[in-house]
Parts: sequence; C-alpha cells; structure tokens
Amino acid sequence: MEIKVLHQVMAWNDDVSAEVRQTLRQHKVCLVNVMGSPGAGKTTLLTALIERLRQEFAIGVIEGDITGQIDAEKIAALGIPAVQLNTDGACHIEAMSIQHILPQFDLDALDVLFVENIGNLVCPAEFDIGENFRLTVLSIPEGDDKVAKYPLMFTDTDCLALTKCDTLPYFDFDLDRVAADYRGVNPGAPLFETAARTSAGVDELSAHLAGRIRAALA
Amino acid sequence: MEIKVLHQVMAWNDDVSAEVRQTLRQHKVCLVNVMGSPGAGKTTLLTALIERLRQEFAIGVIEGDITGQIDAEKIAALGIPAVQLNTDGACHIEAMSIQHILPQFDLDALDVLFVENIGNLVCPAEFDIGENFRLTVLSIPEGDDKVAKYPLMFTDTDCLALTKCDTLPYFDFDLDRVAADYRGVNPGAPLFETAARTSAGVDELSAHLAGRIRAALA
Repeated sequence: MEIKVLHQVMAWNDDVSAEVRQTLRQHKVCLVNVMGSPGAGKTTLLTALIERLRQEFAIGVIEGDITGQIDAEKIAALGIPAVQLNTDGACHIEAMSIQHILPQFDLDALDVLFVENIGNLVCPAEFDIGENFRLTVLSIPEGDDKVAKYPLMFTDTDCLALTKCDTLPYFDFDLDRVAADYRGVNPGAPLFETAARTSAGVDELSAHLAGRIRAALA
Repeated sequence: MEIKVLHQVMAWNDDVSAEVRQTLRQHKVCLVNVMGSPGAGKTTLLTALIERLRQEFAIGVIEGDITGQIDAEKIAALGIPAVQLNTDGACHIEAMSIQHILPQFDLDALDVLFVENIGNLVCPAEFDIGENFRLTVLSIPEGDDKVAKYPLMFTDTDCLALTKCDTLPYFDFDLDRVAADYRGVNPGAPLFETAARTSAGVDELSAHLAGRIRAALA
C-alpha cells in the first residue's frame, strides 16, 4: 500500500480543533489520540487493537513522527489506510496538521481514525487535536514514578494502558503506586494492564474502546 | 540534605548559553547535559557514574523535572549537592534556568555539574544550556528504531549510553541496527552498552567521561 508522507503545518489557531471535531462529526468518524513516551509500545498496541476493532469498525491511522515512515509502514502492512505525518522536529501534533491531513482519507468510509502522536510524555498532552478521546500508554520499563513526574499526560486523558506487563518480573515496578497516582490525578478513569506479546489485557482494552467509539458515533 | 526547588525562568536570549559557559570556565566547572526519554534510566545511570567519578571530581547535580523532587532526593541521598529545577510543564531546560541556578552552588568547590534534563527524546536536544558535552541515554526497552525516529538527539550528542542492557534477552532489540544508525548520523562518537543493575559497562563509560571532564577542565 502506498504511504503518503505529509509535513506538519505550523500555522495555528484556536478554532482548528473545533473545526476538526465538526468535520469528523459530519462524517461520523471518531478520532482517538494515542500518546506516550518514545518506545512505550504505542504502535504495537495499536496493531493489536486494530486486529480486534476492525471486525466492527472501518479504521484509518495517522502516524506522527519527527521523521521517517517506519510506523506507517507497519500499519499499512495490515491493509489499513495510513498517512505518515512528519513534524520535521516538532515534539507534538497540532490540530492544524490533522485538518490538513483529513482530505487524504475517505472519511465517509471510516468509523475510527487513530492518531499516534509523537513519542513524548510532555508536550502532546497540551494540544487538543480534535479528538473524541485520548488513550495514554505507559510501559513497565519506564518506571512507576511517571504519573508523579509527568502528571498532565495522565490527568488529561480518558484511559491509561500499561504496556509490556509481561516484563514486570524484570523491573522494579509497583503497580499499586501507579494506580494510586493515576486515581489521584484522574479519579474514575480506567486503567488496563496489557502485554501485546502475550495478548494479556488487550481484549479488555479493545472492548472498552469499542464502547467509547460506539458512544462517540451514536 | 535540604533540597532547593527552583522554577524555570522562561525569559530567554541567545547569549545566555555563552554566559553560562563563561561563568563555568571562570570557576573551572565542567557542565554535562544528560538527556533521554522518560524512564530511560538517566538518574540510575547518573547515580552509578557519581559513585565512580566522585573519587576524582567534586560533583554537583541539577535535576530537571516538570514537577516534584523525586530525583533530587535520590542524588542528595548520596551526599551530593543537588538542586531540583521544576519547569512547571515545559518540556526542556533552557540556559536561562541554568544561569539562574548556578548561584545555588559553590562553584569554586565543584569540578563537574551534571544536568539531568527533562525526560524527552525531542526538545532538549534543541537547546544549548552552556554544557561542555552531552550524554544521550537510550534504554533497551525503548526499541531499536529510536535513532532513526528521533535523529537530533543522537546527532547533536557527544556520547551515547545504552542502558538496561541486562534486559536484552527480553526484548527484540538489534544492537547492530542502533550502532549503525548512530554511526550514520554521528560518525566517530562513542557508544557504551551499560546496565546499572549489573554494573556492566559503567566503568568504561565512567572512564570515558573522566577523560572528557579532565580535558574540559585543563
């Protein structure tokens, strides 16, 4: 599948995320903003989720990266429409770039558009890109102090997925500490313990997302 | 040991990194800028390096974090002067903040000042904070595509330390790929394979840094 590579538009205005949201609502597309550190396993988790969610929903993906198209190639290999957004150095995605990319998709043929944001636990959380909801990804090897040290990414999200939980035996990671810190900054938001390699927890996360997508499309 | 918590000064000018560099040269202090993703193991590696380098050098540390003082507490527990810099949301450290913090240290009593930058593989690489040299940290669990996807952090550095190499058996990580990508963007720069938990490679990295510090102080 051919991969389109687009570059981030840095012009910006406050109204763009609302315009993106309106366009997506007109076409009945749910936008999911996936965020987390470099190497947290966002693409791998997304691949596992797509395998499950594609049974019910027509899916497209915008892969955000500083440079290159490594991740878009992985998604395109699944037969899923994927556009690579290169920010050319910028550390996050802005709504203007999403607006610029939407015409690359046949929106009427889509139910869900996943945006995999730049690997960064700080800046992406500050930017509304027109999403219906946010999924934050935190991997076990990153350590159990991350909610305390990078609170905004865990406060301004709708769902937290812990990834690489099959590596818990090899790291000094206190699940209870993370769960407590997360509840402290984001009471009531769900947390899923997953491992894409063993599929642990992926069905549960997928079912939760399916429920939110249905609600967004209703 | 009491920990001072300072907040990032966001005013900025082009001359500040040069001023910081001049101040440090006057006091014969070498500034080392340590950068890498959240959870790459910067603080743990720094702790292991301090244990070795303190035999020869008087060391101080500036711990950069969005919020909190978790890392400065770890450094202060070693009996090392540590100042916590909270950026209050900002994703990198700027030279103005370093200039603002330097008076918190007795510079004439120091040889080396380590700055642990915000956990972020993107933005910190863009900002000269007046350092003599840069140490970039990449952990095995982050994956072997990071040099390709976040090139500036590996291009504009003086030394790369791979961390958590004791976890190589548990991850699909191609050391040769990372080494080749790194050589491609930064020919001749050294790469060390380390594991703080087993001490593998830490002596070698420490010896390399000691040589660079001596050269900077000469």
